[in-house]
Amino acid sequence: MEFTLGQVAAILQGKVEGDENQKVFRLDKIQEGKEGGISFLSNEKYQSFIYDTEATAVIVSENFIPTKALKTTLIRVKDAYTGFTTLLEAYSQFTKASLTGVQEPSFIDESSSIGENCFRGAFSHIGKHCSIGDSVKIHPQVFIGDRVKIGNNTILHPGVKICSDTIIGDNCEIHPGAVIGADGFGFAPQADGTYKAIPQIGNVIIEDHVSIGANTTIDCATMGSTIIKKGVKIDNLVQIAHNVIIGENTVIASQAGISGSTEIGKSCVIAGQAGIIGHLKIADNTTIGAKTGIIKSIKIAGQTIFGYIGMDMKNFLKAYSIFKNLDDIENRLRELEKKP
Amino acid sequence: MEFTLGQVAAILQGKVEGDENQKVFRLDKIQEGKEGGISFLSNEKYQSFIYDTEATAVIVSENFIPTKALKTTLIRVKDAYTGFTTLLEAYSQFTKASLTGVQEPSFIDESSSIGENCFRGAFSHIGKHCSIGDSVKIHPQVFIGDRVKIGNNTILHPGVKICSDTIIGDNCEIHPGAVIGADGFGFAPQADGTYKAIPQIGNVIIEDHVSIGANTTIDCATMGSTIIKKGVKIDNLVQIAHNVIIGENTVIASQAGISGSTEIGKSCVIAGQAGIIGHLKIADNTTIGAKTGIIKSIKIAGQTIFGYIGMDMKNFLKAYSIFKNLDDIENRLRELEKKP
Amino acid sequence: MEFTLGQVAAILQGKVEGDENQKVFRLDKIQEGKEGGISFLSNEKYQSFIYDTEATAVIVSENFIPTKALKTTLIRVKDAYTGFTTLLEAYSQFTKASLTGVQEPSFIDESSSIGENCFRGAFSHIGKHCSIGDSVKIHPQVFIGDRVKIGNNTILHPGVKICSDTIIGDNCEIHPGAVIGADGFGFAPQADGTYKAIPQIGNVIIEDHVSIGANTTIDCATMGSTIIKKGVKIDNLVQIAHNVIIGENTVIASQAGISGSTEIGKSCVIAGQAGIIGHLKIADNTTIGAKTGIIKSIKIAGQTIFGYIGMDMKNFLKAYSIFKNLDDIENRLRELEKKP
Repeated sequence: MEFTLGQVAAILQGKVEGDENQKVFRLDKIQEGKEGGISFLSNEKYQSFIYDTEATAVIVSENFIPTKALKTTLIRVKDAYTGFTTLLEAYSQFTKASLTGVQEPSFIDESSSIGENCFRGAFSHIGKHCSIGDSVKIHPQVFIGDRVKIGNNTILHPGVKICSDTIIGDNCEIHPGAVIGADGFGFAPQADGTYKAIPQIGNVIIEDHVSIGANTTIDCATMGSTIIKKGVKIDNLVQIAHNVIIGENTVIASQAGISGSTEIGKSCVIAGQAGIIGHLKIADNTTIGAKTGIIKSIKIAGQTIFGYIGMDMKNFLKAYSIFKNLDDIENRLRELEKKP
Repeated sequence: MEFTLGQVAAILQGKVEGDENQKVFRLDKIQEGKEGGISFLSNEKYQSFIYDTEATAVIVSENFIPTKALKTTLIRVKDAYTGFTTLLEAYSQFTKASLTGVQEPSFIDESSSIGENCFRGAFSHIGKHCSIGDSVKIHPQVFIGDRVKIGNNTILHPGVKICSDTIIGDNCEIHPGAVIGADGFGFAPQADGTYKAIPQIGNVIIEDHVSIGANTTIDCATMGSTIIKKGVKIDNLVQIAHNVIIGENTVIASQAGISGSTEIGKSCVIAGQAGIIGHLKIADNTTIGAKTGIIKSIKIAGQTIFGYIGMDMKNFLKAYSIFKNLDDIENRLRELEKKP
Repeated sequence: MEFTLGQVAAILQGKVEGDENQKVFRLDKIQEGKEGGISFLSNEKYQSFIYDTEATAVIVSENFIPTKALKTTLIRVKDAYTGFTTLLEAYSQFTKASLTGVQEPSFIDESSSIGENCFRGAFSHIGKHCSIGDSVKIHPQVFIGDRVKIGNNTILHPGVKICSDTIIGDNCEIHPGAVIGADGFGFAPQADGTYKAIPQIGNVIIEDHVSIGANTTIDCATMGSTIIKKGVKIDNLVQIAHNVIIGENTVIASQAGISGSTEIGKSCVIAGQAGIIGHLKIADNTTIGAKTGIIKSIKIAGQTIFGYIGMDMKNFLKAYSIFKNLDDIENRLRELEKKP
């Protein structure tokens, strides 16, 4: 980025107390501010740093009154914290949206269509009969198979692979190396002990405002669709198997795994390294703790489940606290047994 | 795909009851059938859907007698379920095998050879002295290093990386983003607390009919070979470390990990997120439950092992059911201790 | 590789007992030696193999006295094991360092600079304002974003993705498919139940002599830096979240996960599938066992922690050994309760 302080003040509806033509290139923490950076002061705890920071500018709230001389330039706004997050978002939006055009070489089959204001990076591949919306950013080395549909404003980061027949909505962001729509893991055991692949002819549907982490894998359905609903946020290295359905606004942390045909409700939180076996239903608003194993459906909404075989979190923690001292129970039992 | 109903009937040795020239493009579930789709009716539970389905055609068994008027066209075969799976496989085979030719730009060193009826996708890379069989499908963005050997009919999906010296058999399928033959994780501790990499000069051997999931990693051996035997099926995000050997027809589910030099027997089933430490031997026909940790060799074939530190599954479940109520045991013990 | 036995002897300061012009192409185990291979005999247990090996040459120690006729050629050195590892390293170094030049097509923005003796593989991408040192090996299909800095002698294997603003030191090795610097997983819950992405504008700093495994993911900081310090070794499929700091010479095995803002000390060992929640501090020299869950900071250095919720390893194993027989405790308790 490169903004003058005047431009920053315009975005934030604030006022520069100094030279409006100074330029900033970076957002810095106030205690680590360097020339060319812009920072903010919101928490009083950090106030001492403002007098020494080398940041070119600091965003402060209306009521900030310096008690010493300042080297940095102030941009005064209604509320410094809100101002800074506004700037953060403007910066982030700007960075992501400003990418347009085509880097060569890149590959697109002539039967596919792509909207306006898009970016296609070098070594990206778009197969046959795809339909891609406006302002879609297809970074270098992205693979898109055949008959893929993508809505507007979606970002596919470098090396993302979107297999054939996948449907992706608007405003999604898929991080590097994620694989969407590979074959589900379905094999029919044969009489001679070998396995025969069951053709996986379904697809993946990803609704709007979904985020998918780096190197995460979401398999296509055997038939029908694996569905990731509106607003779902998925972290890195997560496994979503064939025919899974994830409800709206559910959040799934890194390295969690969900087995085939399981249906997760709305607004659930699934923590890191949790695992859920196949063909279950998880009620809305369920919280599943880190490393938890789920082996049966959860029917009552709003519970917090934890444990190697998941159970009510409080009960698990109580049991585990006794488990830690099982030695003690063993000894007490032995004492009692000695009694006549 | 695009088939006329006449062509479908020919594949299935069945009979069209209506216009043989109608075309189908898709396999649909009967309750979700749309124009251009073909479905099947096997389970009586779904019989009511056949009268309303919008699928162009439905495969039915010889003995099906409609009780109402039909909008769809029937294809009558001996057994509808078998007929549909036959069609599924024909479709799947057709889709995978029909891909041939070379998309440009792609890279192949002139010292490497490639058989007939192959496909090389855009941005794929084949290094030096490779030998690649017939009907091999190398999708876009695949990396193949030096001295790699690949048999016939093997499919490498987009972005697969096959490192130097890997040997792959016939009829294998490796899904997007999998990495085969990267350096094993071997470091020698030095006197000053640093670690020095131990050169990993072995390779990976993958026998025939092996399937490997998306973003799975299989490391090369330190010396000698990491070996994945005939018929093994591996899911997504699995880790197979250096010098591991996986026996024939063993199945490994997502996010499981197998540490260095461990040898897994034939026809084992290793469930999701299980972990096996290094230098062990696991007997044939062992079933290892989800999230199970294995820290010693399993010598007797045919067991089912489960638990944080794996043990006989029934015993673990019994122990866990008491663990869940440890509170109760604690209370009963306290009661007994109160007795005079 | 291709060396004459004379060249090998020169590297090892040893002596060929036979034809110095014979060529070797491969390092073999003595029991698996084939023509064109070179092996070593160090452990007496393997001595019987030397008389039958088909390896072209075998490295032996000064004091080795054959007791039967030999088909293979001997290279006699001071110590055979040291000699072999020296050869191993020479071979490995040679293989990695000999790669130079540019394969086309590849992409580099004109604003970026790259040092001497580098390699840029086909379909690699280097963005704007990057600064890349000498002898850096950028394999095919590597992605490097904007403003990335890379030191000397670093190797980026095929398909590695280095996102914008990442800084990497000297002598690092990053294995295929790893993703460095993708957005951290940060979302602010909104009043309507949706989540809004918090812009992730920090970066990743990787110091010297760091190794990162295949398909591992290391996220950029929200602000500031995620830092991987000097000498850290990370295995495959590991997750390192935003703002994590990993201390010098720490080793992290496959499929482990470290949540946001956690700080790991120096010289720790984190075993496979372990998980550490966010915002913790782990003391130096901590060993964390496989599958262990860490939910609070570890303040005393040098401990070995293990368990579903990590605790002192010996105590966990003691508790688990009683857990395995909880049935027995239940029965004994019942017996006691029956007493009058």
